[in-house]
Amino acid sequence: MSGLTANTELLRKILVGFVRDEVHKVGVAKGVLGLSGGIDSALVAFLAAEALGPDNVHAICMPYKSSNPQSEEHARLVAQACGVHFSVVSITAMVDSYFEMFPDANNMRRGNKMARERMTILFDHSALYGALVLGTSNKTELLLGYGTLFGDMASALNPIGDLYKSHVWQLSEAMGVPREVIEKKPSADLWEGQTDEEELGFSYLKVDELLHSMVDLRLTRKELLAAGFTAEFIDTIYLKMQNSHFKRRLPVIAKVSNRTIDTDFRYSRDWGK
Amino acid sequence: MSGLTANTELLRKILVGFVRDEVHKVGVAKGVLGLSGGIDSALVAFLAAEALGPDNVHAICMPYKSSNPQSEEHARLVAQACGVHFSVVSITAMVDSYFEMFPDANNMRRGNKMARERMTILFDHSALYGALVLGTSNKTELLLGYGTLFGDMASALNPIGDLYKSHVWQLSEAMGVPREVIEKKPSADLWEGQTDEEELGFSYLKVDELLHSMVDLRLTRKELLAAGFTAEFIDTIYLKMQNSHFKRRLPVIAKVSNRTIDTDFRYSRDWGK
Repeated sequence: MSGLTANTELLRKILVGFVRDEVHKVGVAKGVLGLSGGIDSALVAFLAAEALGPDNVHAICMPYKSSNPQSEEHARLVAQACGVHFSVVSITAMVDSYFEMFPDANNMRRGNKMARERMTILFDHSALYGALVLGTSNKTELLLGYGTLFGDMASALNPIGDLYKSHVWQLSEAMGVPREVIEKKPSADLWEGQTDEEELGFSYLKVDELLHSMVDLRLTRKELLAAGFTAEFIDTIYLKMQNSHFKRRLPVIAKVSNRTIDTDFRYSRDWGK
Repeated sequence: MSGLTANTELLRKILVGFVRDEVHKVGVAKGVLGLSGGIDSALVAFLAAEALGPDNVHAICMPYKSSNPQSEEHARLVAQACGVHFSVVSITAMVDSYFEMFPDANNMRRGNKMARERMTILFDHSALYGALVLGTSNKTELLLGYGTLFGDMASALNPIGDLYKSHVWQLSEAMGVPREVIEKKPSADLWEGQTDEEELGFSYLKVDELLHSMVDLRLTRKELLAAGFTAEFIDTIYLKMQNSHFKRRLPVIAKVSNRTIDTDFRYSRDWGK
């Protein structure tokens, strides 16, 4: 992709091929994903349905008792629209059992625990179905660190991790994701009325322009200023990328040998297959 | 390290420095770890206590109702011996709430869900204490894939990920880990009487010799045979490493841009700090 306007036809072809190849090459036929009712997971469901056949895709909606009921409705709508299997597994009992022991926990701790509980459920279902877990984090979220490490950021493969939110919108349009899901305001559904853009303090379209200029086009700070981005915005976003870098890498291992995992020992998962 | 005999004095110095540097450089003072009662986490507790001061280390024992009560006793003994904070958080309520919905789940699914539940608790406590999660997987386990992805294999930093089990034993001796813990048979405590070596089908000492020859010394198959390893053992271990490679890497992202996370965009977590 050369900019924030995607060639959706080509993108669809590449990403469908990616899901098919990555799943089939490890000898399995199926995928499993969390369907939140939002656009990112909706797009992954559509891609997976096309790549693997809808009957080979299991979408799981994992609401908490305070989740907006509309989220589950939208998730169901998406599953129906692309024909994948759909089930609902409430996380309330597990999450509440834990926080009964820690009643003073703040919203951040609760939100992260929920995201990680959902990950454990997806990986459990991956064992149940013999399926790979498909990730649903986009490039904007990953670069900003707007996600939970070992929670929604964890997966076996992620077809949309190199797509900015702007691309996700365009490709979702092109693939026929239901309008309600495309048009609603993005929200992690952490509390009533929460929207991502309000919490972040800027719009996805605006931050995508900056991230794309910084990361993909490698513009310097001077060039970014000349392009019209404010110093404050540049610094805020740079800091977010920097401070969230630990979420985009493996645990750091102390190196004391010739060949350390993730440093010198990084064989492809494909050796000999 | 040049072989399976470690220079424990040097190793201790390097690993204590590693923990101190990695924790302090992100602006925190504390570490948190899961203490199972086994030797790996015991060694990490000792290293962390020396690196950060015992008062800055929180060790959490997270038993399930079927866990061997001796494991908790040993965990407590280790915490007392190195002086770190110790608490017990049972995972029974959360795990049982989940499997009430899936009563037919086999032992593998249950074991993995438990390992991931423990991870979520450690990361929640990392937010509670402002501490980094210290990993406790050794190189033998990591290479064999004998651990749960996004479970016990997840951490912020891992001081012992480049130490074979043989090194863990030697360094634990040198650092004064309680004898009971050093001498007992390694076990993931997944069921009564379970031992790692019985489940794996070979001893740690034996597999460490092979792994060290294959991975660190890069001996070819021919050279391994000449060194006395049987073809069957070589092939079994090679296959285990190969099949578990996905556990030692990040989620695979479909590449569709100039700079893809984990492919071209791999800045150090240290930029500018």
